[in-house]
Amino acid sequence: MTGVFITFEGPEGAGKTTILQKVKERLEKDGHSVTATREPGGIDIAEQIRQVILKEENTAMDAKTEALLYAAARRQHLVEKVLPELKSGKIVLCDRFIDSSLAYQGFARGLGIDEVYSINQFAIGDAMPDLTIYFDIDPEEGLKRIEESSDREKNRLDLETIEFHKRVQQGYQEVIKRFAGRIETVSAERSIEDVCHDVYSIIQKKI
Amino acid sequence: MTGVFITFEGPEGAGKTTILQKVKERLEKDGHSVTATREPGGIDIAEQIRQVILKEENTAMDAKTEALLYAAARRQHLVEKVLPELKSGKIVLCDRFIDSSLAYQGFARGLGIDEVYSINQFAIGDAMPDLTIYFDIDPEEGLKRIEESSDREKNRLDLETIEFHKRVQQGYQEVIKRFAGRIETVSAERSIEDVCHDVYSIIQKKI
Repeated sequence: MTGVFITFEGPEGAGKTTILQKVKERLEKDGHSVTATREPGGIDIAEQIRQVILKEENTAMDAKTEALLYAAARRQHLVEKVLPELKSGKIVLCDRFIDSSLAYQGFARGLGIDEVYSINQFAIGDAMPDLTIYFDIDPEEGLKRIEESSDREKNRLDLETIEFHKRVQQGYQEVIKRFAGRIETVSAERSIEDVCHDVYSIIQKKI
Repeated sequence: MTGVFITFEGPEGAGKTTILQKVKERLEKDGHSVTATREPGGIDIAEQIRQVILKEENTAMDAKTEALLYAAARRQHLVEKVLPELKSGKIVLCDRFIDSSLAYQGFARGLGIDEVYSINQFAIGDAMPDLTIYFDIDPEEGLKRIEESSDREKNRLDLETIEFHKRVQQGYQEVIKRFAGRIETVSAERSIEDVCHDVYSIIQKKI
């Protein structure tokens, strides 16, 4: 691998997606070759898997089934998109990756971070991110932002309670402790410009 | 768990499905309460996952993606169907289970039996079968039987070469070595009546 693999993580409504796009543009202005993606990333097989995960009718879905499906979609997106882009030397910015599974399924759903990490290791092998940016925001503030935004698709996860989203945030704190060397935290409760500036600086130091 | 969990394994065309039905009827005549099932077993979420796995267009599917999807479908079928039936004291006869993944993905696709076993342990926990019957048949003979049978649905696995099906058979031999105490082999290259008689006797000893 010759490229740089950077993932963006955080609870719902933290602004990851918006900032990822802005940081991409700025890096491109500097002359870098950048790919912005998110799971399932337009990969047909991964999209099919995502449809099963997020279908509102699938309320009977077991937490372990969900974790395995996320790992499967991750694998396919990695193999078909992320790895080829890294191989061609690009900076890959990915909206959510393994840490989402550790925080959401491992911690918030109570499956265990180690257990979920283990099936994700099977899925991604040694393709861990070189750098991860964690967008820190109070879960209630994040959810408020989502409610106010009209253009975001609703899915099965939106049926979860605020307590679930608080556990997700706790989960991320556990994950950050375990991977302190890889994960950098930025406060997302500021203007987009300020957050963007910090994220850009952190990435610049890495590349 | 108070029931007995029995799985039927073997290469394509070994006659597992036919014999499972006949053995079920015979056990019921003896007064046992029996459930016959196979993954995905009519469980809606597991069916959706199976459709992704077997879709002929999904030729780009990575072997690890496939293994994770099988584990996900297995989990859902186990939770929604197998475990409740066992809990109510039934004999559950299941057409294919974990050993299929070990032989097909672990060995024949080269992912490693240990690696595939590990993600399946996540999926099934301690719900290993009490007994597994392995239907031994030469892969070429098995495939010949399938070609001659008109009522069997064709899927993505039927696009595989005879070499693949030979590796599946080798994989099963490895799996049998590892789980010698659980797996009983019957020769499937005989009349249905003879095979059925042996399978019935093995199960009778167990229950």
